[in-house]
Amino acid sequence: MEKKIKRNFYCGDLREEHEGNDVCLSGWVQTRRDLGGLIFVDLRDRSGIVQVVFNPEYEEAFKKADEIRSEYVISVRGKVSKRPEENVNPKIPTGYIEIIGQEIEILSKAKTPPFLIEDDAKVDEIVRLKYRYLDLRRPKMKENIIFRSKLNKAIRDFLDENGFIEVETPILTKSTPEGARDYLVPSRLNPGKFYALPQSPQLFKQILMIGGMERYYQIARCFRDEDLRADRQPEFTQLDMEMSFVDVDDVISLNEKLIKYVVERVTDIKVNIPFPRITYNEAMEKYGSDKPDTRFGMEMVDVSDAVINSDFKVFKDAVENGGKVKGINIVNGSNLFSRRQIDELVEKAKEFGAKGLAWINIAEEGIKSPIAKFFSSEQIENLISKFNAKTGDLIVFVADKDPELVMTSLGSLRLYLAKTLNLIEKDKFNFLWVTEFPLLEYSEEEKRYVAKHHPFTSPMDEDIYLLESEPWKARAKAYDIVLNGTELGGGSIRIHNTDLQEKMFEVLGFSKERAWNNFGFLLKAFEYGTPPHGGIAYGLDRMAMLLLGLDSIRDCIAFPKTQNASCPLTDAPSEVDQKQLKELHIQLKI
Amino acid sequence: MEKKIKRNFYCGDLREEHEGNDVCLSGWVQTRRDLGGLIFVDLRDRSGIVQVVFNPEYEEAFKKADEIRSEYVISVRGKVSKRPEENVNPKIPTGYIEIIGQEIEILSKAKTPPFLIEDDAKVDEIVRLKYRYLDLRRPKMKENIIFRSKLNKAIRDFLDENGFIEVETPILTKSTPEGARDYLVPSRLNPGKFYALPQSPQLFKQILMIGGMERYYQIARCFRDEDLRADRQPEFTQLDMEMSFVDVDDVISLNEKLIKYVVERVTDIKVNIPFPRITYNEAMEKYGSDKPDTRFGMEMVDVSDAVINSDFKVFKDAVENGGKVKGINIVNGSNLFSRRQIDELVEKAKEFGAKGLAWINIAEEGIKSPIAKFFSSEQIENLISKFNAKTGDLIVFVADKDPELVMTSLGSLRLYLAKTLNLIEKDKFNFLWVTEFPLLEYSEEEKRYVAKHHPFTSPMDEDIYLLESEPWKARAKAYDIVLNGTELGGGSIRIHNTDLQEKMFEVLGFSKERAWNNFGFLLKAFEYGTPPHGGIAYGLDRMAMLLLGLDSIRDCIAFPKTQNASCPLTDAPSEVDQKQLKELHIQLKI
Repeated sequence: MEKKIKRNFYCGDLREEHEGNDVCLSGWVQTRRDLGGLIFVDLRDRSGIVQVVFNPEYEEAFKKADEIRSEYVISVRGKVSKRPEENVNPKIPTGYIEIIGQEIEILSKAKTPPFLIEDDAKVDEIVRLKYRYLDLRRPKMKENIIFRSKLNKAIRDFLDENGFIEVETPILTKSTPEGARDYLVPSRLNPGKFYALPQSPQLFKQILMIGGMERYYQIARCFRDEDLRADRQPEFTQLDMEMSFVDVDDVISLNEKLIKYVVERVTDIKVNIPFPRITYNEAMEKYGSDKPDTRFGMEMVDVSDAVINSDFKVFKDAVENGGKVKGINIVNGSNLFSRRQIDELVEKAKEFGAKGLAWINIAEEGIKSPIAKFFSSEQIENLISKFNAKTGDLIVFVADKDPELVMTSLGSLRLYLAKTLNLIEKDKFNFLWVTEFPLLEYSEEEKRYVAKHHPFTSPMDEDIYLLESEPWKARAKAYDIVLNGTELGGGSIRIHNTDLQEKMFEVLGFSKERAWNNFGFLLKAFEYGTPPHGGIAYGLDRMAMLLLGLDSIRDCIAFPKTQNASCPLTDAPSEVDQKQLKELHIQLKI
Repeated sequence: MEKKIKRNFYCGDLREEHEGNDVCLSGWVQTRRDLGGLIFVDLRDRSGIVQVVFNPEYEEAFKKADEIRSEYVISVRGKVSKRPEENVNPKIPTGYIEIIGQEIEILSKAKTPPFLIEDDAKVDEIVRLKYRYLDLRRPKMKENIIFRSKLNKAIRDFLDENGFIEVETPILTKSTPEGARDYLVPSRLNPGKFYALPQSPQLFKQILMIGGMERYYQIARCFRDEDLRADRQPEFTQLDMEMSFVDVDDVISLNEKLIKYVVERVTDIKVNIPFPRITYNEAMEKYGSDKPDTRFGMEMVDVSDAVINSDFKVFKDAVENGGKVKGINIVNGSNLFSRRQIDELVEKAKEFGAKGLAWINIAEEGIKSPIAKFFSSEQIENLISKFNAKTGDLIVFVADKDPELVMTSLGSLRLYLAKTLNLIEKDKFNFLWVTEFPLLEYSEEEKRYVAKHHPFTSPMDEDIYLLESEPWKARAKAYDIVLNGTELGGGSIRIHNTDLQEKMFEVLGFSKERAWNNFGFLLKAFEYGTPPHGGIAYGLDRMAMLLLGLDSIRDCIAFPKTQNASCPLTDAPSEVDQKQLKELHIQLKI
């Protein structure tokens, strides 16, 4: 129907300065209360909430106001009026005024919603997703969605200003190995053939560089058919970019400016650039993680040299068999942890993969430690001094002949301690580059070396010679950007010539034939004049989640999917007609 | 390798004012020529081309310059110098200067490309697509891709400024009937079930309105598995938007501002708003098309009344059987068309579906017409006057008992004549709204009425009563935006309550059960407070094509697909492993 009342103001914008204005508002009824012969309606639109008062003087409106219920959609004509002193609500921006309602139009009635349209209403997530249209009306969810839009806009403004071209790359593309599992789409026009949905626009962005586009970006949808963990979605959004004629420093420097610009525009967080950089090796040694959380200290110290001459067989054996002994100092830990709690800590370390956890408790009353007897007092002194530990502290150690295990288990314990002891300041935002990743990593599953990032990542110039002899030692021109212990994004300078790319595939165990079968179009493209190039991709859902301080990635995605990759709102995926399958030249085989 | 020469200027930016500057450039070798003991290299990057001259004074650079070939990627260090008078090339912006090359670094060699990197090189399109990275280096293709990026940016700037929120809607979603054929994606985690790729975000944007987002937009990828015509792609891009609390005028008015802003920002075209509006009926009557090209006149005139009393049986029968007689006046047509050419025009009309084409040739020497004998001279005078025709003109008529056929065939003839007679000014950009579309159209294939736009389009208020009795007569709150005879986009005000939506499905022949099965989540959502809402979607590929004056939509898509929906660059779609199919619970059936 043609609407009689034509909105001329938004609810949340009204202030004392509008007193006396005739306003037309539209929105949802947050609440209706009857009080002292008047009807009070809190009217909500995207901008906020305003109070509308109906009195019997406007008879028709008053009658209609009596009909309305929560979540009815209405339009209201009325006059802005200052609230009587006693009714002022300083907690909301419109709390000094109210609207004297003169006319109501009911645009849509509403059943009683299955949950309250309020932030604090506790609701099962499946119910929220099923009624997403109600869930999105809650102020926080609304703000999350608006935030993402602002985030996108800020990113685009910066990149446009810096000469980046937005290019859309195909969603219906080719299935390629060397990644996660692909989503497949049967082709009707090409019987027996399938498209794959892209896991990232990686190959296309490299082709664009070879095509002379020089600076590309895209806020791109990507797809991975993996079993879902808490913060994974079958489809997710990447900020994807690529630049030509650049080296590692160029990409890092531009991206620092990007992050500073974007984060400061959409949040209150101050960002200082340049960000610290740490090599992969250093990150592993100090933090036991390739995405260290640097909001607190408690860095790991290697004491292998200091224990090699002790009588403690566990430590000695570990070091002598190519392993390490590392420890962290829990400041004030002696006072914080009872003997029983220390035992619990040992159990925790085992959960994280360590064989055990040795400790030295520097108590007021003297050193307490089950391993002290294996050390001379100078050796103990020396150990303690390596941690700058003092009375009241507690030092814990992990030893193993597998150095990786020492680092990761102690790294996990470090994070656990920080959370338990509340060491992390909530308003700290520590950005950090991790560089010089290993080019390869060993895949237990495939019993071969696979690319740590992807097969297009360039080795460091000084390590190229290692590809022939000890490729597992080669480092890559790869970098990750880490925020507060979470990987925000990662990228690399790419290989840009056929020979090196073929060599890389050889190292990965591809025959030349297989390499050309799978990636022939890229190898071929390299032969026609390819600029050096590199780039980065950010997980945009995760970035939004972190900047908003959310616990779940699903709270900043309008229509996320559940653990089994389904959508409670639409019931996707669903069964389809046999006719559809027949046209696609496939049949079910369950 | 670490690059020694670090780019500090772009080739195309250099001018006389840079004389004496030491510059480092990077790019592709457009040409290399040896002349008078010097080597001339045209170096190309995204910004343009600059000439670099190597002389034997810089021995090493001179030697390397001798090695390079077209499409090598190089970096050059040199000094900007004014060209000698006789070498100035005023045709290019950098034509007044050249670079005296002092150092060269070859970054990548290149084979001889299969076609020249020039706009005019005639190349088979399949070859262009296979070597898209070379094709994209051609100036026009590069400009097309950059144009799209600017177009997107302008759209986003306007919509952001006007309170629209960008929201990403799912690509993995639910298969729904009532549209084109879906692309399907088998679900691994839900055996026997399939996602569908969206044909448009229609239902999600309506859900967003019900969720209180009020103003939404998205530059959205959409998918239709149809047999491809020249300007169709299996995946295409829509500018999709939706607004709450609006009527037809609100959507139209905002979109006129959008189009003016965007087109004037990215092209030299001046856009005057408001655009003319024409109802569907008027468009069909005057132009025989629901997307009229108004860059020229030659409007159709209905002469049914004027011929009903003639003796010409063909005309009389048509009108008496519920049909029409319509004609157009070809100004100066008597002079332009010989008798033989008029006969050809008759054949053309038949190609367009007309049973025949009657004509009155108002020649200098008097009326010539095979049908004149059936009319009195007053009747002929009267007919001629209805067209304001004068001596030298040629009037042509189509008659049929099917009025639709009269309009569309004559409409096609009108377009054909405009092209043949060169009546269309190339630099005219006529935007036009077509409104009041029929709600339904009869589908010969399905033997039932189907929605002309889609089942969510609201009927006009004054026509709602017709749904009960004669639904085929009902008009919709639907509008298309037409540019120079091409549909740029279309939209509507949507139905926003369950009862009317259920009624609509009933009219479309859906049982209540089937309606709820397929669209239950929308029908249910309507019950919880739904604002009146409406929107529009533009075909963005087509918009770019028209604004760029291209003949093919593929020339403004970075990686388009061919007629059989395949990609010559990557060879998608392709065969996949049996293992992959097994995981997806499907098998081939060819």
